[in-house]
Amino acid sequence: MASRRPRKRPPAAAASPHPPLGEFGRIARFFAPLAKGAAGAANLEDDCAVLKPPPGQLLVLKTDTIVDTIHLVGDEPPDLIARKALRVNLSDLASKGARPLGYLVALSLTTGTQDHWVELFAKGLAEDQKEFGVTLLGGDTTHTPGPTTISITILGATSARSIPRRGDAEPGDEIWLTGTIGDGALGLLAARDGLADLSPAQRAFLADRYHLPQPRLQAGQALAAVVNAAMDVSDGLVGDLAHIAKHSRLDAWIDWDELPLSPAGRLALQAYPGLAGEVLTGGDDYELLVTAPPSAARRIQKIAHDTDTPITRIGRMGARRARAPKVRVVDGEGADRTPRGPGGYRHA
Amino acid sequence: MASRRPRKRPPAAAASPHPPLGEFGRIARFFAPLAKGAAGAANLEDDCAVLKPPPGQLLVLKTDTIVDTIHLVGDEPPDLIARKALRVNLSDLASKGARPLGYLVALSLTTGTQDHWVELFAKGLAEDQKEFGVTLLGGDTTHTPGPTTISITILGATSARSIPRRGDAEPGDEIWLTGTIGDGALGLLAARDGLADLSPAQRAFLADRYHLPQPRLQAGQALAAVVNAAMDVSDGLVGDLAHIAKHSRLDAWIDWDELPLSPAGRLALQAYPGLAGEVLTGGDDYELLVTAPPSAARRIQKIAHDTDTPITRIGRMGARRARAPKVRVVDGEGADRTPRGPGGYRHA
Repeated sequence: MASRRPRKRPPAAAASPHPPLGEFGRIARFFAPLAKGAAGAANLEDDCAVLKPPPGQLLVLKTDTIVDTIHLVGDEPPDLIARKALRVNLSDLASKGARPLGYLVALSLTTGTQDHWVELFAKGLAEDQKEFGVTLLGGDTTHTPGPTTISITILGATSARSIPRRGDAEPGDEIWLTGTIGDGALGLLAARDGLADLSPAQRAFLADRYHLPQPRLQAGQALAAVVNAAMDVSDGLVGDLAHIAKHSRLDAWIDWDELPLSPAGRLALQAYPGLAGEVLTGGDDYELLVTAPPSAARRIQKIAHDTDTPITRIGRMGARRARAPKVRVVDGEGADRTPRGPGGYRHA
Repeated sequence: MASRRPRKRPPAAAASPHPPLGEFGRIARFFAPLAKGAAGAANLEDDCAVLKPPPGQLLVLKTDTIVDTIHLVGDEPPDLIARKALRVNLSDLASKGARPLGYLVALSLTTGTQDHWVELFAKGLAEDQKEFGVTLLGGDTTHTPGPTTISITILGATSARSIPRRGDAEPGDEIWLTGTIGDGALGLLAARDGLADLSPAQRAFLADRYHLPQPRLQAGQALAAVVNAAMDVSDGLVGDLAHIAKHSRLDAWIDWDELPLSPAGRLALQAYPGLAGEVLTGGDDYELLVTAPPSAARRIQKIAHDTDTPITRIGRMGARRARAPKVRVVDGEGADRTPRGPGGYRHA
């Protein structure tokens, strides 16, 4: 793990009962223990990490960034920030059916960040390393006059010959979704003290879903062998399905009445019917969105059972469209519930 | 390549003759062409990159971050920033004897960044992809209210069974250095309009050395089979040698009179003798620092010849020290020229 000396030194940290550790001290104290299990991490004392890739397997790679004030509400404790930063990457691996191997973290800490913050951040990583069987391989720490910025690059592996892509959906595929949808967006509102008509427990449930996504690794690994297209829902259901539609050149239909809502999500929609758009277009759910031929339905239901993961059929892919395929949301009475405008699925 | 929608939208960009592309447009227009050669990059249209690792080889991994205003002077054009961000990572691979395979870029753009900036940034990456035979595999773009922050994670491969580490130096090893030393630190001064006693051409030479490091990939691959310890000089010669000394538990001696200086560097030291400390402790040289037994000297000289890379013997490793090994700089008359104080080799 490297720590290039910044050109301008940050101002001295505020008074603390212990002398500040400095960057090398922080790496040795807080991050090196996270790399203990990785032979090639060299205790983070070398410039590079070394990885012996599993023979004959494909490596799956992803990098994702969390910027404080952009991707965070602002009240998140550092361990939760770390876990979310790791989990959004794990979720991408899950969508490709890969099992995680290790990760590198590039941490730009806002000026004046205390050692204790870094300690808690590393504690969060340690918890999720244990939960998901992944190890820190290396990283880089530096300072920034801007908000704390965390880029995690994760490596996974799969023994499959190919992985399900966004563009692999086929006409007539059924669309399936793990877990429940909308909790991420509703949880963001709850975390910002919204949804006052809900109980504190319901608000806490939703906020937790926003703060701490559950990467669907087991289900993802099983689904990869069965589905045609797959991705995780990070930008919102309709927007992400629009990626599948666009790259597969197929229209897509979502059945509003089939959408899996959590009990708290259902109550939120009863209290605030105007939030239906948030459920359809809000991000941060980190559930898996896959398409598969109707003949795969029974196998998908078995995967749901075996991995203890709710997986719901929510729609189907339509006809080929050479240009501008559309995503439509329709309810049981045939009414069009597709969200419109910039909150819809335009990614610009 | 993903582009998660930020929670807060940046203000609209300033008036431009073209409508702004947006993040997905930028990825498609500027970054997708950089991934053309990578089978697993899927034109950056999928969530993850896929890499088929070279059978039987070790993967070498590194992540490094550049923060504008911290690691940049501020006058760098975007293509130069991109090339430096890539090269500091290539330099780490070089030190481990790895050949580059591909990289991922996490780009947090300061609010209001224009499409043209991104276009030039991608142009710089394209130039260096061609020069160093490396391909974009994937990435992530987002916005930040802080300075533009670029984290590049690079993957390399080596068929060697092990790679030279910082902690692998042996007592009596000779210390060798590629290229010249101090140009990076002097170049930073030149880029900041210092070194007025030098000619414009000399200042431009040094500034170029600061802005555009030359990763020693060919020499590094050949040296890896011969040397015991290796790293690249990014934090300053004495500080980086102190890492080798610390992790190898050996004292180290540098012979001041043997240090390879560029003609402009030599003139700068004649005009400003007080800058000797900068040469010894300033960063950004990105030359290779290796240690090898005296019996390897002839092979190292042959590598220098074959790869057309100056490689100079600059000192030797001393005796084992269980605790606090020291780096000393001594000149031909035996005078101690070791830099002291916080500008020395304390990394805190």
